Amino acid sequence: MKIKVINPNTSSQMTEEIGVSAAAAAREDTEIVCVSPPHGPECVEGGSDAVASSFHLLNEVRRSEEEEDFDAYVVACFGDPAVDAIREITEKPVVGIAEAAFYLSAFVGAKFSIVSTLPRMRKETEDRLAKAGATNRLASLCTPNIPVLAFHEDLECSKRTMIEAARKCVEEDYAEVIILGCAGMTGFADIVSKEVGVPVLDTVMCGVKIAEILVDLGLKTSKANTFQTPTPKIHK
Amino acid sequence: MKIKVINPNTSSQMTEEIGVSAAAAAREDTEIVCVSPPHGPECVEGGSDAVASSFHLLNEVRRSEEEEDFDAYVVACFGDPAVDAIREITEKPVVGIAEAAFYLSAFVGAKFSIVSTLPRMRKETEDRLAKAGATNRLASLCTPNIPVLAFHEDLECSKRTMIEAARKCVEEDYAEVIILGCAGMTGFADIVSKEVGVPVLDTVMCGVKIAEILVDLGLKTSKANTFQTPTPKIHK
Amino acid sequence: MKIKVINPNTSSQMTEEIGVSAAAAAREDTEIVCVSPPHGPECVEGGSDAVASSFHLLNEVRRSEEEEDFDAYVVACFGDPAVDAIREITEKPVVGIAEAAFYLSAFVGAKFSIVSTLPRMRKETEDRLAKAGATNRLASLCTPNIPVLAFHEDLECSKRTMIEAARKCVEEDYAEVIILGCAGMTGFADIVSKEVGVPVLDTVMCGVKIAEILVDLGLKTSKANTFQTPTPKIHK
Amino acid sequence: MKIKVINPNTSSQMTEEIGVSAAAAAREDTEIVCVSPPHGPECVEGGSDAVASSFHLLNEVRRSEEEEDFDAYVVACFGDPAVDAIREITEKPVVGIAEAAFYLSAFVGAKFSIVSTLPRMRKETEDRLAKAGATNRLASLCTPNIPVLAFHEDLECSKRTMIEAARKCVEEDYAEVIILGCAGMTGFADIVSKEVGVPVLDTVMCGVKIAEILVDLGLKTSKANTFQTPTPKIHK
Amino acid sequence: MKIKVINPNTSSQMTEEIGVSAAAAAREDTEIVCVSPPHGPECVEGGSDAVASSFHLLNEVRRSEEEEDFDAYVVACFGDPAVDAIREITEKPVVGIAEAAFYLSAFVGAKFSIVSTLPRMRKETEDRLAKAGATNRLASLCTPNIPVLAFHEDLECSKRTMIEAARKCVEEDYAEVIILGCAGMTGFADIVSKEVGVPVLDTVMCGVKIAEILVDLGLKTSKANTFQTPTPKIHK
Amino acid sequence: MKIKVINPNTSSQMTEEIGVSAAAAAREDTEIVCVSPPHGPECVEGGSDAVASSFHLLNEVRRSEEEEDFDAYVVACFGDPAVDAIREITEKPVVGIAEAAFYLSAFVGAKFSIVSTLPRMRKETEDRLAKAGATNRLASLCTPNIPVLAFHEDLECSKRTMIEAARKCVEEDYAEVIILGCAGMTGFADIVSKEVGVPVLDTVMCGVKIAEILVDLGLKTSKANTFQTPTPKIHK
Repeated sequence: MKIKVINPNTSSQMTEEIGVSAAAAAREDTEIVCVSPPHGPECVEGGSDAVASSFHLLNEVRRSEEEEDFDAYVVACFGDPAVDAIREITEKPVVGIAEAAFYLSAFVGAKFSIVSTLPRMRKETEDRLAKAGATNRLASLCTPNIPVLAFHEDLECSKRTMIEAARKCVEEDYAEVIILGCAGMTGFADIVSKEVGVPVLDTVMCGVKIAEILVDLGLKTSKANTFQTPTPKIHK
Repeated sequence: MKIKVINPNTSSQMTEEIGVSAAAAAREDTEIVCVSPPHGPECVEGGSDAVASSFHLLNEVRRSEEEEDFDAYVVACFGDPAVDAIREITEKPVVGIAEAAFYLSAFVGAKFSIVSTLPRMRKETEDRLAKAGATNRLASLCTPNIPVLAFHEDLECSKRTMIEAARKCVEEDYAEVIILGCAGMTGFADIVSKEVGVPVLDTVMCGVKIAEILVDLGLKTSKANTFQTPTPKIHK
Repeated sequence: MKIKVINPNTSSQMTEEIGVSAAAAAREDTEIVCVSPPHGPECVEGGSDAVASSFHLLNEVRRSEEEEDFDAYVVACFGDPAVDAIREITEKPVVGIAEAAFYLSAFVGAKFSIVSTLPRMRKETEDRLAKAGATNRLASLCTPNIPVLAFHEDLECSKRTMIEAARKCVEEDYAEVIILGCAGMTGFADIVSKEVGVPVLDTVMCGVKIAEILVDLGLKTSKANTFQTPTPKIHK
Repeated sequence: MKIKVINPNTSSQMTEEIGVSAAAAAREDTEIVCVSPPHGPECVEGGSDAVASSFHLLNEVRRSEEEEDFDAYVVACFGDPAVDAIREITEKPVVGIAEAAFYLSAFVGAKFSIVSTLPRMRKETEDRLAKAGATNRLASLCTPNIPVLAFHEDLECSKRTMIEAARKCVEEDYAEVIILGCAGMTGFADIVSKEVGVPVLDTVMCGVKIAEILVDLGLKTSKANTFQTPTPKIHK
Repeated sequence: MKIKVINPNTSSQMTEEIGVSAAAAAREDTEIVCVSPPHGPECVEGGSDAVASSFHLLNEVRRSEEEEDFDAYVVACFGDPAVDAIREITEKPVVGIAEAAFYLSAFVGAKFSIVSTLPRMRKETEDRLAKAGATNRLASLCTPNIPVLAFHEDLECSKRTMIEAARKCVEEDYAEVIILGCAGMTGFADIVSKEVGVPVLDTVMCGVKIAEILVDLGLKTSKANTFQTPTPKIHK
Repeated sequence: MKIKVINPNTSSQMTEEIGVSAAAAAREDTEIVCVSPPHGPECVEGGSDAVASSFHLLNEVRRSEEEEDFDAYVVACFGDPAVDAIREITEKPVVGIAEAAFYLSAFVGAKFSIVSTLPRMRKETEDRLAKAGATNRLASLCTPNIPVLAFHEDLECSKRTMIEAARKCVEEDYAEVIILGCAGMTGFADIVSKEVGVPVLDTVMCGVKIAEILVDLGLKTSKANTFQTPTPKIHK
């Protein structure tokens, strides 16, 4: 099968890293194509970035639907931007990496913590956890104030911060699983897991695997109500 | 004071009607300017429409912030698109008409029903009600399948449908207040109220009045966390 | 318009201060009359005080309905005593200052903290937050153990305590807005806001502004169910 | 032991019936004294009645605390008026009959329905169910529009209405237990149970039995926080 | 009446202590028989222990139903194992000691804390609190890492740990009541209460008292739906 | 990889059908072994059946852990019996088919309905939906009163009943996805989906696919807290 993984921001470094993780997670017979939209912010750190990213992301999927032939889409940003909107414009499975990790975490431990980036994203994450019904499984939400793009600038420092945050979640907050709450943290799950002794979920990998099984099961997005194809309308 | 009311869709008829209601609700010393963004879909009937609207709406506010001098913004669409995102790019109060009506309804009756348009918007509305904490005050959500733009095509039929739906909410679902769940229904609250005998909220009017008092109270959007000004970043 | 602001306790100092804030918040064309019932406890610090206050408060409104001609009532106590009961005996808008602040806070920041008085009021406040649907927006509830009437005895100390409590809410609990959780704290919002750098809501002012717009919108309390006029009955 | 059962309304017929049920439920060695306050409305059908009842009820308990020597108090009204307030002014166990039935129902079946009186009490009942954490066990809330005092006027009709309502709860709403939601319905549980085939709880009886075991266990109301003895204060 | 109290584990010391507490709590005219099943683990410290205990516990009740004549069953383990299952195979009241304490605590204080044993039981306890609707009354859940059987090995140390944990709940978490969250802690409520100054619930005693009043009230488990008698089926 | 699918009941017909579905869902390189425990009830229709099934199921996994070498376990009963308990006794992924379907449904539509068997299982299913955080995505729970083993006795009738129930969920309850709520319904998803026009989830297949990707991702059950290996203890 062919899965299109879309990094909604325009950082080519992040797109590359996401692609590496996605390919590592995919089965041998799954072809991963990892792209980012041609336009948009270089990172998504809040609602106004998400609005811009969502717009270009949706256009990218529209184009892809017309010109290409993928079996599923994975949106590779922890904010799951535009995921529900994309479900309207295609029948093919659409997977947000955060929701994939929220749900898969339930099979790995009873309580999970999220180690994420900036405090400014806390409320939006809390709202998505509530929507996903994961609030009662949340041990804690840890936002050690790492801007998305700063993560790779001093990688050793970022890793230490991430590991210390995860350790606190396990030791003080009773976390049994850690979710790394930023697509930019992809590739670090094993390192963190080794340090803190509990399973750590790489959200990009979770997203790809969920997409694979939705395709395997022949499941399409329901067109019954919420994700109906939009009626044609004039766009100025 | 000067309040900018933005209809996020590009239907000039709806912009006009929203402007009329906004002006009717405003105090004498409040100047209402009602516009729609230059681009975007002619109506917002789901997530993909909302993504496009949000993008152009945000740009419209960005432009307004640089060139104009308003005291507050009202986003005049029942989906409250991009409201949180706009709060990041201005200090001035930003009001979504749906949230304004959800909260004001609490002062008017113990349980409210929403008479809205399409079943496809149910889940998104339910999610927003949950985020706003209004679920326990909801009597029912009624979606009598009127497409947004069809509302004015056969106005008599639309009015009858709207009134019958509201009546059912009051008689069967114990609604004490009705919220008309589409900006396109603005101007009809009095008619429906007279027919069904309970207060009916016009969301556009609610939005304008909330904006007025936020300005009166000198309240600005908090920049402490969620609605911090975005850090500058490269946009491709 | 004429708004009657009722301080449900019988402290004339508090009635005076509430009156000053209410008048400061009101529009020029709004006449504020601030009174307290002739009987009742000098402060409301729990359920048994609230029972007594509610009784005399309700009688005061009954009398007012017969003899006076107000457009709306504001109940100026953070416990919102008897607010729902008053809604039964008048059609005019009735606003509790706590509910007014809970809802208005949603337009100012994503999470709010309450800086209140006594730990003994915590559970009752939590229950009202749940009823108002504000639990998921609550950052923290801070009760630094200041008895209501002690607040003005050592005002400098009270101010310091209030500011320190608010600062902790912002710095440790991710509060984006502060609500001062006692009518006796009216008049201090600006000072606290200046110190801690986030918007601070004065509940008395919030209550008056909500009352003004309910009157502007011509909204009456729904008589459909919960707030129906009580049937006449024998009172021994 | 001696238990004081207080009917918060001033209907002597209801006080008598409540007394009969309370005595029937009590153990041989329990002395039941059933009274109503000297003042107050003859029935409690909403918030404003409850405010008046609560005031006189609290005074009755204050007097009783000074002059009499009971081991526990039972408040015999389905609205549980002033129950939390009374807990402040005595150490002795205080039991509301509704909360007693809500909790005891959990031991009798998985889902319960309430057959109550007037639609106007729905929201207040829903709020109390939420506070008591019983919402997820509620099958349905049935309010067949019987005014409290009308119940005994045409008793045969009332019984039929009550039985039909209970039957609907069992057959259509999956109720496994019925709670009769008005102290005025005391004495009818057996009749309804025989007709509809599931256990039916008499709230007055539930309240008395809970009071007995609290006394047996030597439990006093905690004075740690919420139910602390009020500090002395001037009452005008 | 005759109440069968079943300790679901096979520790004879615990059975004995539970029996002592149960007898102390019971009325003079209540006969307590306290047993444990002939098979099963010597303590229940998680889900797999609970599965084994539940199996033998259910068989014990089946045997008892055929051979003996009790009026009610009390399951004396804080995990309330198999309580719902037992309700299917008998009409007689079945009481879990944890649910008994959760509900009775509501009459004693506004918020309670649980002082329990092992962190591994936290999530399961949280899930049961949610099912019982007690989450909003929970002040804190304290698991000071005492294995069930270690409790009596160094009793002085256990008591100190238990008291310190309870004190922290009262002083830092605003607990007004303490529930001792393990049947093995039975008999220590008075000691802890004396030390920390708030009511402390002995769960075994709570269970017995609830059973007594269910019998007094003549209540049987509803057979309407969830707890119907199982249809006969082949067991291999 | 090798996945052990365990039907917790002892109906060999159901084990066979579950095995067929599991094999159909599995990848070519996944070996499915489908068994049932040697002992236990022939179907699981409530709590007491589940207690027996859980006991033998847990023993079966214990035996398997010692003698065999599987990569993951799937528990093929819609009640997810003993799933958390099994997670304690093995590090390998353990998947319940109901939880698998609850979570996967989120990727297929916004609201789902469950078409299940007996009303007696409603409350237990509701509790599990709440624990899984799926309540806000539930459109309806439909229990058309088909005993588990009767399903295949008149297969045509069962199919019609199942299809009619699903159709009602879609047409009246706004369901966008259907979950067939009994392992005995495995193999019928395609037929129902074709009839009602929305995706239908086969829970057995969902379980197998989730197990596959947990193995692919190298995820083991966290041993941090809830699912720690039980300490050795005496079993009588």
